[in-house]
Amino acid sequence: MSSLLRVGVIGAGRIGKVHARTLSSGVPGVEVTMLSDVVEDAAKSLAADCGIKTVVADYHEILKSKDVDAVAICSSTDTHATIIEEAANAGKHIFCEKPIALELAKIDQALAAVEKNKVILMVGFNRRYDLGNRKVREAVTSGAIGTPEMCIINSRDPAPPPLAYVKVSGGLFLDMMIHDFDLARFLLGDEPEEVFAYGNCQVDPEIGKVGDVDTAIVSIKFKKGALCHIDNSRRAVYGYDQRAEVFGSKGHAFTKNMHDHNAVIGRVDGYSEPPIYNFFMERYMPAYEEEGKVFAECVKSGKTPPSGGYDGRISVLMGYAAIKSLKENRPVRIEEVDK
Amino acid sequence: MSSLLRVGVIGAGRIGKVHARTLSSGVPGVEVTMLSDVVEDAAKSLAADCGIKTVVADYHEILKSKDVDAVAICSSTDTHATIIEEAANAGKHIFCEKPIALELAKIDQALAAVEKNKVILMVGFNRRYDLGNRKVREAVTSGAIGTPEMCIINSRDPAPPPLAYVKVSGGLFLDMMIHDFDLARFLLGDEPEEVFAYGNCQVDPEIGKVGDVDTAIVSIKFKKGALCHIDNSRRAVYGYDQRAEVFGSKGHAFTKNMHDHNAVIGRVDGYSEPPIYNFFMERYMPAYEEEGKVFAECVKSGKTPPSGGYDGRISVLMGYAAIKSLKENRPVRIEEVDK
Amino acid sequence: MSSLLRVGVIGAGRIGKVHARTLSSGVPGVEVTMLSDVVEDAAKSLAADCGIKTVVADYHEILKSKDVDAVAICSSTDTHATIIEEAANAGKHIFCEKPIALELAKIDQALAAVEKNKVILMVGFNRRYDLGNRKVREAVTSGAIGTPEMCIINSRDPAPPPLAYVKVSGGLFLDMMIHDFDLARFLLGDEPEEVFAYGNCQVDPEIGKVGDVDTAIVSIKFKKGALCHIDNSRRAVYGYDQRAEVFGSKGHAFTKNMHDHNAVIGRVDGYSEPPIYNFFMERYMPAYEEEGKVFAECVKSGKTPPSGGYDGRISVLMGYAAIKSLKENRPVRIEEVDK
Amino acid sequence: MSSLLRVGVIGAGRIGKVHARTLSSGVPGVEVTMLSDVVEDAAKSLAADCGIKTVVADYHEILKSKDVDAVAICSSTDTHATIIEEAANAGKHIFCEKPIALELAKIDQALAAVEKNKVILMVGFNRRYDLGNRKVREAVTSGAIGTPEMCIINSRDPAPPPLAYVKVSGGLFLDMMIHDFDLARFLLGDEPEEVFAYGNCQVDPEIGKVGDVDTAIVSIKFKKGALCHIDNSRRAVYGYDQRAEVFGSKGHAFTKNMHDHNAVIGRVDGYSEPPIYNFFMERYMPAYEEEGKVFAECVKSGKTPPSGGYDGRISVLMGYAAIKSLKENRPVRIEEVDK
Repeated sequence: MSSLLRVGVIGAGRIGKVHARTLSSGVPGVEVTMLSDVVEDAAKSLAADCGIKTVVADYHEILKSKDVDAVAICSSTDTHATIIEEAANAGKHIFCEKPIALELAKIDQALAAVEKNKVILMVGFNRRYDLGNRKVREAVTSGAIGTPEMCIINSRDPAPPPLAYVKVSGGLFLDMMIHDFDLARFLLGDEPEEVFAYGNCQVDPEIGKVGDVDTAIVSIKFKKGALCHIDNSRRAVYGYDQRAEVFGSKGHAFTKNMHDHNAVIGRVDGYSEPPIYNFFMERYMPAYEEEGKVFAECVKSGKTPPSGGYDGRISVLMGYAAIKSLKENRPVRIEEVDK
Repeated sequence: MSSLLRVGVIGAGRIGKVHARTLSSGVPGVEVTMLSDVVEDAAKSLAADCGIKTVVADYHEILKSKDVDAVAICSSTDTHATIIEEAANAGKHIFCEKPIALELAKIDQALAAVEKNKVILMVGFNRRYDLGNRKVREAVTSGAIGTPEMCIINSRDPAPPPLAYVKVSGGLFLDMMIHDFDLARFLLGDEPEEVFAYGNCQVDPEIGKVGDVDTAIVSIKFKKGALCHIDNSRRAVYGYDQRAEVFGSKGHAFTKNMHDHNAVIGRVDGYSEPPIYNFFMERYMPAYEEEGKVFAECVKSGKTPPSGGYDGRISVLMGYAAIKSLKENRPVRIEEVDK
Repeated sequence: MSSLLRVGVIGAGRIGKVHARTLSSGVPGVEVTMLSDVVEDAAKSLAADCGIKTVVADYHEILKSKDVDAVAICSSTDTHATIIEEAANAGKHIFCEKPIALELAKIDQALAAVEKNKVILMVGFNRRYDLGNRKVREAVTSGAIGTPEMCIINSRDPAPPPLAYVKVSGGLFLDMMIHDFDLARFLLGDEPEEVFAYGNCQVDPEIGKVGDVDTAIVSIKFKKGALCHIDNSRRAVYGYDQRAEVFGSKGHAFTKNMHDHNAVIGRVDGYSEPPIYNFFMERYMPAYEEEGKVFAECVKSGKTPPSGGYDGRISVLMGYAAIKSLKENRPVRIEEVDK
Repeated sequence: MSSLLRVGVIGAGRIGKVHARTLSSGVPGVEVTMLSDVVEDAAKSLAADCGIKTVVADYHEILKSKDVDAVAICSSTDTHATIIEEAANAGKHIFCEKPIALELAKIDQALAAVEKNKVILMVGFNRRYDLGNRKVREAVTSGAIGTPEMCIINSRDPAPPPLAYVKVSGGLFLDMMIHDFDLARFLLGDEPEEVFAYGNCQVDPEIGKVGDVDTAIVSIKFKKGALCHIDNSRRAVYGYDQRAEVFGSKGHAFTKNMHDHNAVIGRVDGYSEPPIYNFFMERYMPAYEEEGKVFAECVKSGKTPPSGGYDGRISVLMGYAAIKSLKENRPVRIEEVDK
């Protein structure tokens, strides 16, 4: 491969836009050469914006192209696994948004293709690339906070997605908490053993009617002994609440929320500060840029991505365990759902 | 009763000192007239320090005295229930340190005596009287943060107590997390339905050998639907970590840790601030004063204390449920342990 | 003018890069059509990066071009006034980096040309476009903090510029504190009456040898009575320290420094946070984008820019007054230096 | 002297109450044996509260008593110097509230008596004993922030004192900013050379009518080169604003304001925190205790107090210089007012 990594972006929706823009302008040494979307107008408009030369409706053209070294799969979740398989068979390196699939069989088939074709697969767990989270991880790996004993993640969206999306998303555990499952593994550097979940609908009963929950707290026992708690809500009126803490034998390390601006007002009734970032794009834009850089670096150097196929698979298993735990009101071991 | 409330303090140990001092000098309208401890020297020295005139070895003299309107029970846990019963039968109002007892039958017998004699019983859940926690509670009762949906409590001691204490303490859930159980009920204004606990020994294996855990995360389902998470560790090297959050439909309210002082240093490698308060007495001294004031006010006015016998009882049941949950690795409903 | 504003950027140095990039990609409705620099290679490389089609060595070609509605003057300070005059005479709207010139006569000649040709002139006081500073200003204009009575600005660069730059910069007051002079006027919404300055060389004696200071504190009396203090240092090892406060009859409003990331580590010896932003580009990049947007909007709508020629002139006078005050060790009224 | 230091407190007003209480209960090894006030009822009530046995109307009885080793002078400012002289001549060690006197001749006469009689004199600059300020000072003396180059003090009272008090107080510079003058010397470990002051009446014109200002900013040049800025206002509606910063060649150290409690509320419109401490007694109570301890220690060990007669004198000179600077609108050197 030349020193320039040529990427084809598949999907021009919300997350496709993020990656098309980031890879085009925020990541040196990468050129987005092709963009596909079944809605061609969306693709064309995004391509114009990012200076992408070739737009196609059918992503297979990207897979066939000689001008593409790697693909970024940003299409709908139900297409991820198939495209991974096809891309791997076409010899393209792969960046894929999470989750790989909602079904384990599909995931395993996709991962087998990746392995067989010896291509790089990186899964889009953007939080691993957030500078704050990386600093917390560093505090663990450097020994600064000693042996990790607990991990506490508070993770709340500003507002629920549309019901139509909820229905096909796999539900809160596979769509939203999957990020936190992966983050807990990343921060602790350990693997989950057992999961217990409480969840219900406190935000919107309609979410319950389609079989999902909008509020959940999950406890996870990790193999080396660390205990982990994650809470999720689909609605935090004060913004996109994203905090993670690791507690260890020599200290704790944690991320704070980021506010809209840095002005404070003090009056007779007290002090006021602005709300926190309200949107994942404000909060994680630098993380998306870092993610793109790491992907390019891994493809160029052959290094294993920090969030690979295994991570994509285990996070789905953790979601399965949480769903089963909630249904059966008992702790569920990971191996119970790994089959 | 005269406008001066005359209190006899029973026990001159660590917590007895706190209450003797607070009631003597921090609470107007109260006079500590008697102090008892089996170790008379300890009692005498404390009495001299606080200007308490009468010192006795046997607390029964306090119960018999005409110069005492109320008692503050600060003796060892195993004596609480008996003294409550005796004090109630002697017509004294009662402030008692938590827990009332480790055995439900003893608690119920003590509470029956209180009810029969129509005396005031207040249980020493000091965190209810902390200004920060009260402000969080106010944010719920005022509607400022809407309907409470989650409660997250992070509560970690600076260092484990002596093993000898651990053995007789009732264990982490009845000795330490009992404060957090009560705080969750206070902040949410709701009652627990079911409890799930993970716990293990990550701090000191000796604690495990005496049958206790030193690290635990507990999930609680409350009756109105709110979900609660509590984490405890017996050792936080950075200080006495005490944070509580209520998340609601219109916002969240939470307490921050308090630091040793207010100086900050910024250098080329970043900013440094002092550790947080390391000891419960630094952190909660104003809460103990407020607690004393509220007790005096309740006795004088006949008002029901914010932390009464029912609160003392239910918090022990929550501890039982957590212990059973940990042992059987399943969620346990409160009614299972209420018998 | 069409709805697209076509801008020619003059100068491809450090600040030219900022504006070329910002106007190319961060400001909708603007196209950078030309770029000039005497160092053509610098211009070509920047143009390639930003997708600017036409590169010239001589900025006069930009002034003559039909494809340019407005210019952004990012060349060296000594050229600003001449180019403003020429651009105004060519009928181009003008964005010019601060200061307009170091000599009052040159400034007045440039402003006369702007007035005669009825073009828009906006001066690059980027801090006016910073969201935090705007929120502080809003706290004044909305009445939230009452009548402004004091303004305190702490403003310190991470490291001194090269001596070669110091020599031609006009010195600390005209090169660095000029931003703070403008910010004080912006935040208070008032005009300066008198200035008193203390300054010396505490950072680097070489700066003193070329006749400048590297550390200064300045007091300013404003016409409506508010008192203002500004401090500057050419070297803050902990980062680019940028804080401003307005104190008023009903409260105060202030900006906090922004840190490199949001992770905090607590250990036995206390808490550590990262350094603050180290560079003006990290700190003020969103302000530069906002500045570009406001410039485009002013040109399109004919609105007066928030930082115009008058602001550029008065800030230089404040610098003159500070220099004279330091030299003569006495307070200096603005009218003394306005001639 | 026995190991118990016997103190007579002179004056039972606001600050007399602080010291009587602190010395009685917060400082081990000290007993307040006598208390005097011309208003005997005030003295009796305070004595009862603190367990002080002997109450007198005339402080001369304290000076004559064999039961008194040291006096704490808490009477009105105009009596300080005379009592210091008398106490010194009576061989008593002396703690005196600031300022020693408003007239230099009186100060010098009092200090001469102290010297002649070889008694300890400590002046009540309470901020030197504040833990935060001490930590900032430590950051200087330890070299942690390198050579100090600037000192910035923001110091604002919650509300102006009664006009009657303003009239006899010596004015803002000798009554209020005198604390900041001393703090600057303490933090920098250096002596002032020249002072420049701006001041006016923005809070209450009545204060101006009695010849004082209510708002002031002062610049001070220190001998080793450090530049210092102090701002004062008699009214900060958001509380008692007390911040100090030292900026040095290797970093900066500063104190933050302290808030009423530690609860934070986040809602859709942002975050709110409580006002800062509103009163000097809340803010500096631990400093008063430390001050008492240090005084007792100095008397017992013969050590020179951290805030002695020289400090009391120089701070008044700084006030003189500021007053003269404001009147003559020019910088004033300390030696100009030292005669």
